[in-house]
Amino acid sequence: MQYHVDGELVPEDDATVSVLDRGFMYGDAAFETLRVYGGVPFEWDAHRDRLQYTAETLGFADAVPADLRERVDETLAANDIEEAYCKVSVSRGVQPGTLDPQPQVDPTVVVIVKPLPRGGRDGDPVWDGPATVQTVRTRQVPSEAVPADIKSHNYLNGILGRLELRRSAGDGDPADECVLRDTDGNIAEGATSNLFFVTENGLRTPSAELDLLAGVTRDIVIELARDEGFPVETGAYSLDALRNADEAFLTNSTWEIRPIGTVDGIDVGAGPMTKLLQRLYDERVETAHY
Amino acid sequence: MQYHVDGELVPEDDATVSVLDRGFMYGDAAFETLRVYGGVPFEWDAHRDRLQYTAETLGFADAVPADLRERVDETLAANDIEEAYCKVSVSRGVQPGTLDPQPQVDPTVVVIVKPLPRGGRDGDPVWDGPATVQTVRTRQVPSEAVPADIKSHNYLNGILGRLELRRSAGDGDPADECVLRDTDGNIAEGATSNLFFVTENGLRTPSAELDLLAGVTRDIVIELARDEGFPVETGAYSLDALRNADEAFLTNSTWEIRPIGTVDGIDVGAGPMTKLLQRLYDERVETAHY
Repeated sequence: MQYHVDGELVPEDDATVSVLDRGFMYGDAAFETLRVYGGVPFEWDAHRDRLQYTAETLGFADAVPADLRERVDETLAANDIEEAYCKVSVSRGVQPGTLDPQPQVDPTVVVIVKPLPRGGRDGDPVWDGPATVQTVRTRQVPSEAVPADIKSHNYLNGILGRLELRRSAGDGDPADECVLRDTDGNIAEGATSNLFFVTENGLRTPSAELDLLAGVTRDIVIELARDEGFPVETGAYSLDALRNADEAFLTNSTWEIRPIGTVDGIDVGAGPMTKLLQRLYDERVETAHY
Repeated sequence: MQYHVDGELVPEDDATVSVLDRGFMYGDAAFETLRVYGGVPFEWDAHRDRLQYTAETLGFADAVPADLRERVDETLAANDIEEAYCKVSVSRGVQPGTLDPQPQVDPTVVVIVKPLPRGGRDGDPVWDGPATVQTVRTRQVPSEAVPADIKSHNYLNGILGRLELRRSAGDGDPADECVLRDTDGNIAEGATSNLFFVTENGLRTPSAELDLLAGVTRDIVIELARDEGFPVETGAYSLDALRNADEAFLTNSTWEIRPIGTVDGIDVGAGPMTKLLQRLYDERVETAHY
């Protein structure tokens, strides 16, 4: 594979950053992950806007390069792939001194891609079955400490959640995703996904007012459901609400819409709402990209 | 300068990590910063133990190399410096897949040094005056989200605190350190330092039971004060307690004991207790290293 690092295409083995890069030293970087369908990044504007929002929140508003999309396209072309996972990172780069962020920023910009199956109507999901989901003790970082609505390289919170899954599985297979609750005990999100569930009253998902990252896929799913006239409620929900749901699923750019098979060992599973939304999502990808 | 990366001494410009290194992608790494006096790392065992503790907490207990001390010594020798700042990092390295931490770890180990003035009785502090300190809105990450007693490359919490200082300073000079409170409003620590203050009842510092990293220098200062028969109290304190103190100071390995000049513009300053502890600290360094 070839990656795009600091404005240049380089072979994977040469794709490096300085050990003094603040992305490495402090996780002081913004990122986005997205899907590429038929050679074109899906929902590019939404991802670019959020990357910009993260950069602004972290005080390096001018660091996102104007030609970022071209860098993504060049990376795809260099690797000759049209169906891909893509990760774009912008770090505060190397700065003099230690922790203090300096106004003068020479950012490090990295684009990574890897092949994925086709999406859309004739596509295959990247997962091999419904997700097993398990609640963990690790709580979501509250926004008063680090804003939950930015996507940064500080990802230990989610890693600690996943680590709990591995530790509790012993020699067995860990669950696919953890449920992180906020410090008040409301369900917030997975380590890399948003949570949805279905009750007799319609589709529900934790509110973006809570400490969570409201993903691009989450927004699309809400829009698809509302376009079909299904009631969508966002709010503060307990674990029991999720466990007792008729259907539940996870969303992120890579997984798209992944049914939740079990929560803490309790069967939940897909159903007509999940399946319809998956179909609508596939249609949207198909129409836009193939 | 030459740095030690992955077992090799390399010139600074070649000191890099892969863009796929989890240290860069997620801040998924442990670190320590320490002082080297007279060619010998100060309180090496305490720093090494904490590095090991962080690595264990993050699930890569076996990643800290047995020859870590030799790598530090080699780096000092290669740069021909005996008085130094030293940062040692161990990341989970490159792993297959995305976020899920895998049990099989090929860590990335980095040692960075840079020259500092001599320490001890005839030493000079690295700072040029008492610290101006300002309270920020950003709160400490609670341990239920990410344990506060590990030292990881997830450092945005402190960076956001420092960023508030810069933003509130406008075109002026930002304060030297921020005071982060925990989510309950107790004072916790600075972005890179522990807080101490002096009242008529003795020396006080926020309890290690709170969400903070109890530094190696903090431990030494508590020990020095107790050895002199001064009462030391640890507890949960308000901002007012700090602002109204007779004396106050910050500690970390690099600053050692740095007086606090002002808190939120209120004069606090050094006094006999701070000066005595500085002298005792210098003696300890002098005796051990020169």
